[in-house]
Amino acid sequence: MADVSPISTDQSDARPAITTGAIRGSHKTHHTTESGLKVPARRIELSNGEHLDVYDTSGAYTDDQRHIDVHSGLHRARAGWADGRENRTQLERARDGAITREMEFIATRENVSGELVRDEVARGRAVIPANRCHPESEPMIIGKNFLVKVNANIGNSAVSSSIEEEVEKMVWASRWGADTIMDLSTGRHIHETRESIMRNSPVPVGTVPIYQAMEKVDGDPAKLTWEIYRDTVIEQCEQGVDYMTVHAGVLLRYVPLTAQRVTGIVSRGGSIMAAWCLAHHQESFLYTHYSELCEILRSYDVTFSLGDGLRPGSIADANDRAQFAELETLGELTHIARDHGVQVMIEGPGHVPMDKITENVRLEEELCGEAPFYTLGPLATDIAPAYDHITSAIGAADIARAGTAMLCYVTPKEHLGLPNRDDVKTGVITYKIAAHSADLAKGHPRAQERDDALSKSRFEFRWNDQFNLALDPDTAQAFHDETLPAEPAKTAHFCSMCGPKFCSMKITQDVRDYAEKYGLTSVEAIDAGMREKSGEFVEEGGRVYLPVAE
Amino acid sequence: MADVSPISTDQSDARPAITTGAIRGSHKTHHTTESGLKVPARRIELSNGEHLDVYDTSGAYTDDQRHIDVHSGLHRARAGWADGRENRTQLERARDGAITREMEFIATRENVSGELVRDEVARGRAVIPANRCHPESEPMIIGKNFLVKVNANIGNSAVSSSIEEEVEKMVWASRWGADTIMDLSTGRHIHETRESIMRNSPVPVGTVPIYQAMEKVDGDPAKLTWEIYRDTVIEQCEQGVDYMTVHAGVLLRYVPLTAQRVTGIVSRGGSIMAAWCLAHHQESFLYTHYSELCEILRSYDVTFSLGDGLRPGSIADANDRAQFAELETLGELTHIARDHGVQVMIEGPGHVPMDKITENVRLEEELCGEAPFYTLGPLATDIAPAYDHITSAIGAADIARAGTAMLCYVTPKEHLGLPNRDDVKTGVITYKIAAHSADLAKGHPRAQERDDALSKSRFEFRWNDQFNLALDPDTAQAFHDETLPAEPAKTAHFCSMCGPKFCSMKITQDVRDYAEKYGLTSVEAIDAGMREKSGEFVEEGGRVYLPVAE
Repeated sequence: MADVSPISTDQSDARPAITTGAIRGSHKTHHTTESGLKVPARRIELSNGEHLDVYDTSGAYTDDQRHIDVHSGLHRARAGWADGRENRTQLERARDGAITREMEFIATRENVSGELVRDEVARGRAVIPANRCHPESEPMIIGKNFLVKVNANIGNSAVSSSIEEEVEKMVWASRWGADTIMDLSTGRHIHETRESIMRNSPVPVGTVPIYQAMEKVDGDPAKLTWEIYRDTVIEQCEQGVDYMTVHAGVLLRYVPLTAQRVTGIVSRGGSIMAAWCLAHHQESFLYTHYSELCEILRSYDVTFSLGDGLRPGSIADANDRAQFAELETLGELTHIARDHGVQVMIEGPGHVPMDKITENVRLEEELCGEAPFYTLGPLATDIAPAYDHITSAIGAADIARAGTAMLCYVTPKEHLGLPNRDDVKTGVITYKIAAHSADLAKGHPRAQERDDALSKSRFEFRWNDQFNLALDPDTAQAFHDETLPAEPAKTAHFCSMCGPKFCSMKITQDVRDYAEKYGLTSVEAIDAGMREKSGEFVEEGGRVYLPVAE
Repeated sequence: MADVSPISTDQSDARPAITTGAIRGSHKTHHTTESGLKVPARRIELSNGEHLDVYDTSGAYTDDQRHIDVHSGLHRARAGWADGRENRTQLERARDGAITREMEFIATRENVSGELVRDEVARGRAVIPANRCHPESEPMIIGKNFLVKVNANIGNSAVSSSIEEEVEKMVWASRWGADTIMDLSTGRHIHETRESIMRNSPVPVGTVPIYQAMEKVDGDPAKLTWEIYRDTVIEQCEQGVDYMTVHAGVLLRYVPLTAQRVTGIVSRGGSIMAAWCLAHHQESFLYTHYSELCEILRSYDVTFSLGDGLRPGSIADANDRAQFAELETLGELTHIARDHGVQVMIEGPGHVPMDKITENVRLEEELCGEAPFYTLGPLATDIAPAYDHITSAIGAADIARAGTAMLCYVTPKEHLGLPNRDDVKTGVITYKIAAHSADLAKGHPRAQERDDALSKSRFEFRWNDQFNLALDPDTAQAFHDETLPAEPAKTAHFCSMCGPKFCSMKITQDVRDYAEKYGLTSVEAIDAGMREKSGEFVEEGGRVYLPVAE
């Protein structure tokens, strides 16, 4: 690195505070596995005495029992878990028939059996991105038979951003539910930024090593070499990076297939490798040195995220020959990596109209041996910059339902500028919506519990419970406060949409009370008994709803 | 009406200004039909000398050539179009084989043949909501073989809002693309609010007449009568309401089917009718007087929007027996209305997980003779209050792709409070995204033109063109300004995400130039020619991208 400047402690006063403390209406709890591992969850306490435990990605930052010091980093909970088997990856251990501690932890976290976790990892249909040099991380799994995961990209750039801001972005993104983060920093201080993130991240961290390699050759792709790239990968493995995007499928012969596209090559890594291939008229060094790369990743148990360097950047370019030619090569590379015992997931588009989404998943599964698919959206239309978190959530929900295992978020600033703190939160929440919608549609065993708890609280006018069960309790309450700020309104049996005299939920509750009172819970019962009961009902009140606040 | 207070002109100073003027980067244009009708469109001028005309719902308010006076209302352009056939509906005229002026106008607006419009209307697979007493409206069509439409709900409520604000909300919603609006006002001044909206609305207006009928009985559903309801419907027909939600499918015997639901009956109209049925132990007067109602609507050519009073209000209640029992009755009512020559569309849910969406459309088409489906979202999950524009856009895009003809928008305030101006805009833009995503997926002939134009401008760094082609140019530019406010950045060949030294689009352009220069546009060509050309390429610059702003 040309310009190394470690974080000096005397800068700490100027640093933005790291967000800590439990999310509104909840607190950290732990579920204990058979062998005694503590698996974190977030417990939402309800006003009716019930509670709901939900999946928790936020780490120690939301644990009021834990002291946070970003200089010393998080507790290295996984240190020693490998238990003398340092040189076996999760994939190899799974094939051995072993349920590792990571798998045991994940089984409790996902409410499934350890054997299911092991089997899915052994098949390569799920990955556990857990570099042995990142013992601060809480194990998680990415695979179509588990909860759909969300990744948030953070990272500084040549234009703005500081190291301190990036650490807080990681904390902030995982607070709201990001399952992994990718550090896409470019420019100065890449190594130090990443070191700060790694030591403080409870979630797996992914990178695109070629970005840092480019810094080492002063931004000239033609000067890249295998050796420079390899050394960068080793540097990042040593720091604990859990998965790496490698654009090894951008082959020389595919590059001209992009020439007639509306938006050419939009992947940074893809365009760098395309430039290198053309400049040297050689096959990509990522492809020719791929087996060496596999051995490096294997020795740390770093997971490949095989990048789609030729992904479509517009609706017009979706599912074209360049995209699918590369996907075929990614399939070849998947099998090579697995032969080396390395875990693999596959990156996907991008921009795809809804009618072409399913084909992406089917083809990926077929060509890549069902390796977990990890897609960027995709955006279902190009016409709404400033709303691309939404255009892409539509595609993301659809592609996740079809089998995509992890979704890379898109923020409202996509295509326009750098996301700020609010944009990161909006992006994460939007993608939690897409992921959860897919979990529901896929029938994930316990996914609907939260919907049911929230809808029940809504129906029973337990406003605070409704807020607390929401993905974003703070904004839900703030919106309610805008119209009805008074505290009594949080328990009032009406809402601002209809006002106190005209509330459908109140009417329904009365209908329900009535039906239950008279046993009118079926078509038969109402046919038999309605006529005589009707008289009593009118006597008892004349109307089925009464104004609450008159 | 108990408390009639017409809008006095001396209040006009306090009134918020009506939003007028063209949307950024565009101006009103007109396409002329064969018989000389002027069909509005919005022309977006591009910096490369090209332009794109897009569908325009905004009426005279965005026409710089027109003077707006909300007191005198819009020009009554359709007055006299019926041409001596005042007592024939669009459906009857279509069956007669006639292409009405409305159909001719719509054919040009949708870029299809007049015969297609006529045929779809004759089959009942499309409706033209165009009350003869609303001559200010610009004809539009709702049907699965046309562009997917978006409705925006506006309306005051018992808690807040003024008449003036409602007119501006209508102008504001149609400015951003609402194809119809529904006036859901309750409380005082319903008649006057609606009159102001009708006389100023270029888009069809829908209502739920039972809301006003409830005001006439002081909010007590048991006191409702057919006569009060009928008179309310006639009053609204005379004002020019184009379509009316009628919850005539809430039958006495279906009500108890909702008792065990998580969220009972969430439709206001549905709960009112359920309360009435139980109180009287009689079949709904909407059902027993349905033929009379058909005759009233026929005489104005008002379109039925048969309401789903028993729609699910939560994921748990989706596709249940109550919902589908009512749908079956809506099918029966559809055929009766058509026999009377009345146009019909069918309202749909609500809250539905993605795996249950398609079944809704197939069943609606089967039971209701392919009458246009008009759905509220649906929300694909319940867990994100404050983001329900997004949860529902996911469902809306999916259900539109499956054949839903019109989508009722949901704003971020859904379930929490009353939408303000920003919420209305966010809701409309979000639903234009869902509708357009479906248009693309359905292969609507010219839908992709806008995506292609925007992506091309993005690729060519024509930033202002990208903003202007966006659904919301103002926000797109504002987001860009946040990171790179300087005017030169609007033409710079880089963006803030990568910075000037590291831009994938710039690299791609260089790859393209290179491939074109050497004819390397196919796998064969590159196999044959790459080796020798590579040398020249390196000589000519050594690297394929050059920093723009170093």
